[in-house]
Amino acid sequence: MNGIDMLRDIASGNHPNATMAETLGMSIAEVEEGRVVFEAEPTDRLLNPAGAVHGGFAATMLDSAMACAVHSTLPAGDAYTTVDLAVKLLKPIRPTSGRLRSEGRVVHVGGRVGTAEGRLVGPDGTVYATGTTTCLIMRAPK
Amino acid sequence: MNGIDMLRDIASGNHPNATMAETLGMSIAEVEEGRVVFEAEPTDRLLNPAGAVHGGFAATMLDSAMACAVHSTLPAGDAYTTVDLAVKLLKPIRPTSGRLRSEGRVVHVGGRVGTAEGRLVGPDGTVYATGTTTCLIMRAPK
Amino acid sequence: MNGIDMLRDIASGNHPNATMAETLGMSIAEVEEGRVVFEAEPTDRLLNPAGAVHGGFAATMLDSAMACAVHSTLPAGDAYTTVDLAVKLLKPIRPTSGRLRSEGRVVHVGGRVGTAEGRLVGPDGTVYATGTTTCLIMRAPK
Amino acid sequence: MNGIDMLRDIASGNHPNATMAETLGMSIAEVEEGRVVFEAEPTDRLLNPAGAVHGGFAATMLDSAMACAVHSTLPAGDAYTTVDLAVKLLKPIRPTSGRLRSEGRVVHVGGRVGTAEGRLVGPDGTVYATGTTTCLIMRAPK
Repeated sequence: MNGIDMLRDIASGNHPNATMAETLGMSIAEVEEGRVVFEAEPTDRLLNPAGAVHGGFAATMLDSAMACAVHSTLPAGDAYTTVDLAVKLLKPIRPTSGRLRSEGRVVHVGGRVGTAEGRLVGPDGTVYATGTTTCLIMRAPK
Repeated sequence: MNGIDMLRDIASGNHPNATMAETLGMSIAEVEEGRVVFEAEPTDRLLNPAGAVHGGFAATMLDSAMACAVHSTLPAGDAYTTVDLAVKLLKPIRPTSGRLRSEGRVVHVGGRVGTAEGRLVGPDGTVYATGTTTCLIMRAPK
Repeated sequence: MNGIDMLRDIASGNHPNATMAETLGMSIAEVEEGRVVFEAEPTDRLLNPAGAVHGGFAATMLDSAMACAVHSTLPAGDAYTTVDLAVKLLKPIRPTSGRLRSEGRVVHVGGRVGTAEGRLVGPDGTVYATGTTTCLIMRAPK
Repeated sequence: MNGIDMLRDIASGNHPNATMAETLGMSIAEVEEGRVVFEAEPTDRLLNPAGAVHGGFAATMLDSAMACAVHSTLPAGDAYTTVDLAVKLLKPIRPTSGRLRSEGRVVHVGGRVGTAEGRLVGPDGTVYATGTTTCLIMRAPK
């Protein structure tokens, strides 16, 4: 199955969600070629010692959306793996921040490498975090 | 309380663990000034759609150890927040990879900014991921 | 002088260009609040051992545009310094690539930190590199 | 020629230095497998508008040392290209900072990707900047 169809199957519930997504309460909200949106509502199970939502939550939301944006461009048989993930944390996320959307967009997909960028945005448009990623692509032998 | 004492209290159970740490099964294993180690054993609750452990787990483990390494250098009253987190994923982590150690070490702490680096290592010494972070430090008024 | 006026003075030649800009052939092409464009035409003085333009050239072009985008938002008396610079190199740059534009745009400027992102683009719209930055801002005492 | 022999030829003057290295005054000081050191003395030709040495100089020094550290591990026929470069700027560099050493060290080289880290250090041991890189490796067909 190609990437976009697999992602759509996960979004529609025809394919099981990744267990990490279950653990953190994330789900795929939108899928198109080169662009994937994850959503989650932060809870008090995701806090850091200072009582804000852990930066790892933003990192996981952005990693998911950006890597799946790259995946959405791949034909059946091609595989990929994330090699680099970078996140800027702009504002603290609270359990009261509401349902967040993590939008990943492809910047460039070449023969061996795909890059994407992402934004984690609140219901009122607040940008809580941004990210970039580099994925290595293993093309299926022709 | 200064940073290192607070971290030691969390490590010893005198202060409750962050809820994100509970959710992902992480705990603080070692604390000294400028160096903090977190440990966790990956489980099948942390997988990505490809069946490996989600990159967000490595990001969260490294963020925790690196940010706490900066925290361990701060006197009482100073606060900090992570503004930048970058992770290199070198090898896939599996639920069979065993208990992982995420070691964060301070590179430099100045008046307003602290930087740290980290490594996520398996029981056999395999380096699964590395990271860097920049933390903003808000010094208490004198 | 505030940031945007100083940048406009450099762009118009009323204030001397930074010497690094002279050394690499860079100049400021556009300045508005939160957005600055540098231009340069790569030459055979900027090559790496493989004969392509050195990645440091893209890094310098992006650093300049992104940091100045943050600077363009600052009032007189405030200072800033770059603490983090990250660059994705998407395609090789050649001396034949023609005049390149490096556009930096602010993502968020808060009280103590500014972040920006950038793109390095060729005359035909090819995106050669992207970047992100974090700048520390030292506000003037009120 | 394999990577380490080519780098040694550049270091000894048997192979011409890259033109970017000439432009910025950089040279290769040490080469061993997985570790390369560049040196340069910052001059007033490398300044940013604030009168300090431009961050692009540190980025170029670190990129050079880290990429060459990866190159030093490659057999003849293999090629590589840098896809990701990240730099932390810890302290301002001045033309008076003296001769700087940029040391790149390999963290991991796999079949398709190599990662390295680097430090830019002054004559008195001051760490001015750190970096990380990801290089894509194109193995020669067997």
